[in-house]
Amino acid sequence: MPTTALALLNQPSSDAPPHTEELPPFALVDPADPHVRVLDLGVTRGDGVFETISVGSGHPQALEAHLRRFARSAAALELPAPDEQAWNAAVRAAAAAIDPVPEAYVKTILTRGVEGDGRPTGWAYAAPAEDFTAARRDGIRVVLLDRGYRHDVAQTSPWLLQGAKSLSYAVNRAVVREAKRRGADDVVFVSSDGYLLEGSTSNLLLRVGDTLITPGTNLGILPGTTQGDLFAFAAERGLGTDYALLHADDLMAADAAWLVSSVRHAAPIREVDGTPRAIDADFTSALNAFLVARTE
Amino acid sequence: MPTTALALLNQPSSDAPPHTEELPPFALVDPADPHVRVLDLGVTRGDGVFETISVGSGHPQALEAHLRRFARSAAALELPAPDEQAWNAAVRAAAAAIDPVPEAYVKTILTRGVEGDGRPTGWAYAAPAEDFTAARRDGIRVVLLDRGYRHDVAQTSPWLLQGAKSLSYAVNRAVVREAKRRGADDVVFVSSDGYLLEGSTSNLLLRVGDTLITPGTNLGILPGTTQGDLFAFAAERGLGTDYALLHADDLMAADAAWLVSSVRHAAPIREVDGTPRAIDADFTSALNAFLVARTE
Repeated sequence: MPTTALALLNQPSSDAPPHTEELPPFALVDPADPHVRVLDLGVTRGDGVFETISVGSGHPQALEAHLRRFARSAAALELPAPDEQAWNAAVRAAAAAIDPVPEAYVKTILTRGVEGDGRPTGWAYAAPAEDFTAARRDGIRVVLLDRGYRHDVAQTSPWLLQGAKSLSYAVNRAVVREAKRRGADDVVFVSSDGYLLEGSTSNLLLRVGDTLITPGTNLGILPGTTQGDLFAFAAERGLGTDYALLHADDLMAADAAWLVSSVRHAAPIREVDGTPRAIDADFTSALNAFLVARTE
Repeated sequence: MPTTALALLNQPSSDAPPHTEELPPFALVDPADPHVRVLDLGVTRGDGVFETISVGSGHPQALEAHLRRFARSAAALELPAPDEQAWNAAVRAAAAAIDPVPEAYVKTILTRGVEGDGRPTGWAYAAPAEDFTAARRDGIRVVLLDRGYRHDVAQTSPWLLQGAKSLSYAVNRAVVREAKRRGADDVVFVSSDGYLLEGSTSNLLLRVGDTLITPGTNLGILPGTTQGDLFAFAAERGLGTDYALLHADDLMAADAAWLVSSVRHAAPIREVDGTPRAIDADFTSALNAFLVARTE
């Protein structure tokens, strides 16, 4: 079996015509070959959406939540709605087509396609996950960086697409370069009016006493699939969960803090803008053991 | 000759290795074939930069200014510097490879390439221009839309990449959809603190008495190549030119107003948020005659 796999969707949305009448819903093709046209709006304008789904021992994790968010992102960009059944099948097929590994991921991408063509482009790409053992165990250093937007911008200015997981992620990459320049590993975005938002591709999670807290999804941030599963995990263990408006002080004062995401899972924050903060190794291990073991 | 042409660069930057040792600096290939890999960061993260260069009767216009801006955008994203000579040749070759038409364009794209590969991806795509006669003659309707950022965000938060022409343009497309929903054609972005910025892919130009005025390039907006040429044109005619901080009132009070850009050139603004404003047909014709006739 190959190390990576690529499923190209023939009809990523049932609202748009298929690419060919003959093909099955998707085809497994060689990821090393080019499959995207230079006129695809996904590459010319970052005009598309994506999800990254962790795969634990062959099981796509939180797949339904990911596909729901994929559809919400597509709606925010007014893309044709992804066909949930086709995507579900393509993700599972891509995940099943690679060499079995304990941790892998599938990335789904839906673009508006070639301008004027009316047919979106879609694929699911599967590969082994990077080894995040050190980040999960030893923690990560973050810097707080201004996102430039007020905390309420998703309500006042929806055309800014905040809260949609779009392909226009150049800023999300630039902030990680800025973090590295400052001797850190990742970033926590802060609204222009001082509220903590999210990581570059992750959600912020705090533990304060017996409660897990994350910034509210009305702040123009992504509703986290991993954060959602961890809230369910916490509730099962009798912990409280809350969505809140948080400031930098809350991050420093919390009993523990993480950036949580698919694939890297729960990375404890051990430093904020150069100031060390405690990590809770046992609780972090419990979170990651739960996340890695999920079978759906 | 074909209607469209595509030049793929073998070594888009002399700071990075070529794609193959054998090929010439670029190769003309079929634009209908796929040439981009699904792992290219240009499509997975909108992680790249672009330029759109108008071609008048076969002559790429303001090419040096476009390639300088291309290099500045690449620097803002910390991409390998585009090789000016290779891009210049590729743009000219693509422009020369299509059926002669009075107005065409070449789009250049430089992406970070496939993650971990270390070789950026680059191409120049040439095609006939859309017919913008009506927009140039009858004018366009604009709406003012919040960009969400303060006017000084490029200085305070450079990681937001304001002023770089990146591939992460999903918002620039979303605002045009919002404009259409409001019965308009295009948008003028406004900073969160009330300053006029630029169009979705154009610069704002006002005429107040004998002076052409455009928002300052320190506002996190793109320095316009067309606006630059029009300032030179104005100076030759004895008109003044100025970069200024402008408010919505200035747009309504100006003697004339345009969105100016490569390809569409000078589109007079005839309506702002549903309120008509006068256009200067003669002066607009003079601007566009100058822009269309440029031979470099």
